[in-house]
Amino acid sequence: MTAYETLLTEVADGVATIWLNRPEQRNAFNLVMLEELHRAFAVFEADDNVRAIVVTGAGGFFSVGSDLGGGKQTLSKTSNRTDKHSDEALEPWIKPWDMRTPIIAAINGSAVGVGLTLPMTWDIRIAAIDARCGFVFNRRGVIPEWGSLWLVPRLVGLAGCFDLILSGRLFDGQQALARGLVTESLAAEDVLPAAQSLAREIAVTTSPISVGVTKRAVYQFLTEPDRDVAYERELKMFMWMTQQPDAVEGVQAFLEKRAPVWSSSKSGEHPPGICS
Amino acid sequence: MTAYETLLTEVADGVATIWLNRPEQRNAFNLVMLEELHRAFAVFEADDNVRAIVVTGAGGFFSVGSDLGGGKQTLSKTSNRTDKHSDEALEPWIKPWDMRTPIIAAINGSAVGVGLTLPMTWDIRIAAIDARCGFVFNRRGVIPEWGSLWLVPRLVGLAGCFDLILSGRLFDGQQALARGLVTESLAAEDVLPAAQSLAREIAVTTSPISVGVTKRAVYQFLTEPDRDVAYERELKMFMWMTQQPDAVEGVQAFLEKRAPVWSSSKSGEHPPGICS
Amino acid sequence: MTAYETLLTEVADGVATIWLNRPEQRNAFNLVMLEELHRAFAVFEADDNVRAIVVTGAGGFFSVGSDLGGGKQTLSKTSNRTDKHSDEALEPWIKPWDMRTPIIAAINGSAVGVGLTLPMTWDIRIAAIDARCGFVFNRRGVIPEWGSLWLVPRLVGLAGCFDLILSGRLFDGQQALARGLVTESLAAEDVLPAAQSLAREIAVTTSPISVGVTKRAVYQFLTEPDRDVAYERELKMFMWMTQQPDAVEGVQAFLEKRAPVWSSSKSGEHPPGICS
Repeated sequence: MTAYETLLTEVADGVATIWLNRPEQRNAFNLVMLEELHRAFAVFEADDNVRAIVVTGAGGFFSVGSDLGGGKQTLSKTSNRTDKHSDEALEPWIKPWDMRTPIIAAINGSAVGVGLTLPMTWDIRIAAIDARCGFVFNRRGVIPEWGSLWLVPRLVGLAGCFDLILSGRLFDGQQALARGLVTESLAAEDVLPAAQSLAREIAVTTSPISVGVTKRAVYQFLTEPDRDVAYERELKMFMWMTQQPDAVEGVQAFLEKRAPVWSSSKSGEHPPGICS
Repeated sequence: MTAYETLLTEVADGVATIWLNRPEQRNAFNLVMLEELHRAFAVFEADDNVRAIVVTGAGGFFSVGSDLGGGKQTLSKTSNRTDKHSDEALEPWIKPWDMRTPIIAAINGSAVGVGLTLPMTWDIRIAAIDARCGFVFNRRGVIPEWGSLWLVPRLVGLAGCFDLILSGRLFDGQQALARGLVTESLAAEDVLPAAQSLAREIAVTTSPISVGVTKRAVYQFLTEPDRDVAYERELKMFMWMTQQPDAVEGVQAFLEKRAPVWSSSKSGEHPPGICS
Repeated sequence: MTAYETLLTEVADGVATIWLNRPEQRNAFNLVMLEELHRAFAVFEADDNVRAIVVTGAGGFFSVGSDLGGGKQTLSKTSNRTDKHSDEALEPWIKPWDMRTPIIAAINGSAVGVGLTLPMTWDIRIAAIDARCGFVFNRRGVIPEWGSLWLVPRLVGLAGCFDLILSGRLFDGQQALARGLVTESLAAEDVLPAAQSLAREIAVTTSPISVGVTKRAVYQFLTEPDRDVAYERELKMFMWMTQQPDAVEGVQAFLEKRAPVWSSSKSGEHPPGICS
């Protein structure tokens, strides 16, 4: 197991759980934690035995945002480092939306600033009813980052998020659910178990290639304005998928009312129609 | 009335109702039912007296998906046949989103697999509270089809559907309502009456040309990223519409507090700005 | 203060409130009111002391739509006049979505036709529980306008609005909330105070440049299909913002648990990445 300074990790039942682990800083992001988190994503993406990833916070917080100990320097350093704009010659970080492994945010407590925009770039979010959430950027003299100004209106519709983004006001997990930003709002102690349970359900019931292709196709089609082009690409993928062993096994297992035994692996070949 | 092997149909009060009618197969789709359904759509689209279409299931089910009697062959045969990728030289199927007639899904019971992705391509969905729904594809070793990977995130926002699509888990009509996938969740026996009532309301109160132009424009603009281009096209349509007899009658009838008598027909000329 | 024939206006605490003021016509829009409303928007946009705008209706109505006294001529005259398609050589109207000042609709009562599509082009909407709302265009022989056929599906998802748009049926503020068209549904007398309170919160807590950049970026990214392009543009903006005095002050004030004192002004320079 890779060792991390700012994370705890565990793999069980096909599910990797990552704890943001700077509890004395309420899991505020510094550059080390950001780099380690994306390194952990890359490690688990490369592991065929990890079928889903859960990210949560150690202690009572998810993450209160950027570690502001360093002032504005921190703000710019802990944002948007998946690309070439890094100060040093770092390996570019893995983009969660290019991965084949679903990522579930278990928002067990406060999720503020980058502590909220980062999980928006993952796939599924479950929050504590009383988790304090906020796109607080406009109250700190900056703007939301990590692509959230493009992404969040596509996650929940512009009307569901614009007041939150403009005002930077705090809201709780129950309101996050009402706005569609999360899919479940639970008692804090139930958040991680629920996320792990959903992750295990994905690991146990779904075909590795199906989930990987579906995740990548959904994000690729989110940027494809042409419905006909997407339709043709999806059709090519679908027809190719029906020729794979998992499609035969999936139907057979269903008809025989037994659990399927998949042949595919997460890292296997993806169909034409998926862009690399 | 056209005769169908797998459908029942009825026209009353400007509304065509189609029953998927393979109750012993829980209305599972085989190729015949898919072809007949799209043939029925084309027939009713061509009939100016049909102002709205309702699709429901005979017996207690809407449709449990592809008829898996034929194994994977069935899966590939019952998907994505609106285009040129058919094995035989068939007439291309009508695309519901190119039609002028609104289509309402009355999801009276289970809607699984293609039994759920097909109604996503229609316009309005009403479901039974306890209807078992599922994008189960990833559990069968394939991926969602009928363009749903492009479309469904645009129907409800990506955050409202991604967990359902990735996990393939089952959910009920009440949850479908919470996610926005349907607009009403009712007792099973009330679903068809509610859908027919809404269809009749459209048939009675709205101008034929208005509804046809609105439906086509909405789908065309869903694929148009440029707001200004869409604005100009909509403006051209709107100005053209104000010059038609229905616009005069619509306002007069409203001012005189009487039901309007429309001059337009569903099949009449559409304004510039609508692409053919 | 500019004098208006059809509006009342007031500025207090950084918030401009505009009352649509044709109560005997239930605030139906005629050309004068449309022109004055957009003139007022331009005036308040140019005033650095106005940090947010609230629009509401005098009397018990928000606006019942186009003033139909003039028949169809009115319909075409009160629609889509922000562009070059005006009959006379008018100054083009300001586009609310190009402005830097957030606009909040306080829908205190009926919002029908253009009385509903106009506030859709603003940023935030709060409605009275019993406000009668309707995209009634298809019932008047025309189609929805002001770009709503492109915009509204992007505000709430296509599934959240298509039945309302096609059928033109009336719905109340509570249903508008359920569909996501508004963010709050309150007793009628609480609507304006709630909107003004949110506007003041924006005025007091947020950086002028942050809000202006965020609003413009969100609308520009709504028309940008390419996620990577938007990401790069947002990153440029964000990095530029972190170099401004407000970013330093925002963090300092937060760390010192005091209200920030912003240096930026609404009309100041915007970062590269924002299109002009």
